[in-house]
Amino acid sequence: MAEAKAVRRRPGRPRQEGPSPVYLERREEILARASEVFDVKGYDAGTLEDVAQAMGMRKAGLYHYVSSKSELLFLLFDRAWELGFQRMAGVEEIADPAERLAEVIRRHVSLIAERKSLFTVFLGRRPLFDEDGERAFLEKERRYVGIFARAVRDAAAAGLIPPVDPRLGAMALLGMTSWVYKWYDPATATAERIGDEFVRLVLGPRPAAG
Amino acid sequence: MAEAKAVRRRPGRPRQEGPSPVYLERREEILARASEVFDVKGYDAGTLEDVAQAMGMRKAGLYHYVSSKSELLFLLFDRAWELGFQRMAGVEEIADPAERLAEVIRRHVSLIAERKSLFTVFLGRRPLFDEDGERAFLEKERRYVGIFARAVRDAAAAGLIPPVDPRLGAMALLGMTSWVYKWYDPATATAERIGDEFVRLVLGPRPAAG
Repeated sequence: MAEAKAVRRRPGRPRQEGPSPVYLERREEILARASEVFDVKGYDAGTLEDVAQAMGMRKAGLYHYVSSKSELLFLLFDRAWELGFQRMAGVEEIADPAERLAEVIRRHVSLIAERKSLFTVFLGRRPLFDEDGERAFLEKERRYVGIFARAVRDAAAAGLIPPVDPRLGAMALLGMTSWVYKWYDPATATAERIGDEFVRLVLGPRPAAG
Repeated sequence: MAEAKAVRRRPGRPRQEGPSPVYLERREEILARASEVFDVKGYDAGTLEDVAQAMGMRKAGLYHYVSSKSELLFLLFDRAWELGFQRMAGVEEIADPAERLAEVIRRHVSLIAERKSLFTVFLGRRPLFDEDGERAFLEKERRYVGIFARAVRDAAAAGLIPPVDPRLGAMALLGMTSWVYKWYDPATATAERIGDEFVRLVLGPRPAAG
């Protein structure tokens, strides 16, 4: 549905393949403001009116970018996945299993911390999308969990972490790192420090074992 | 506010110190049904009407137990804390730091898994309570995190886990174990198995370190 909007041409503009950079930038801003609105109010209570107000726009203007609240939520969740995969780009090419697992942990923590509002909405109670939407998101979830599971599997195979079930290990680390959205406060601990401590907890040396 | 209700005497009953067992049992059932309603609908959208319906009661009957939706939510959150502390009873007396940390992890996982609906509400977006309620809950949160933090500190001091900041280590483990509410499915892995794997990940031997 986002597609249909995106290819709409503006009068007097040259034909273009996709949406204009200005359009995309504006929509990106709408997603950021919408995250904040839904973070504060919850997505049941938050309205398109609230988002328009946060943008200093009229609701009619907002409709140029999103056709409904459910489309906005879909775009928001989609954006969260997109950011996740962007953040993990190249991580699976890291050959050293310790470095790879450490990177997966650090990158996920930094993403959650940087986009706390978005991930508070994303990681909270999820709206039910239509069949295609649900299928697409489940597929993305599987892919994202897979990045963690392979990192766990390879670190365990190399004897760097205890031999755990890769999927359960992945869920353990996803929980550890995602939960940061609940308590992150850069005044207390920066995302970098949190990432380092988490990596140490999982991969660091334990004196008594030596 | 729960107190005021609780001491109300029923006609023809002998004077009693607190609420009757029947009253408490019924209220407990209301909390369980309310958890399910708010789990499915979210607590913004779920109503007292829905809870009464789930109980097979009239809304008027429900008012004998809770005076408002916000009181119901308060009781629900309070119950979650109570269950948490009950589950952790005696854990701090375990002298062996490995056993203690393992128990803290296992107990928290089993609690979340057993009361998934309640903790889906509890760990989701939290309503803002009045000043006294907020203070009480923050105090409970500190106490609960403290149980994890001391277990981490003592295990690190004994060289059983890497030397990490106790609070950040506590938040890591609370995230790992709380997140279970998002994906727990006993058909895939029982709470016991999840607890065992998490304990292994945190405390288990790593072959490469030996």
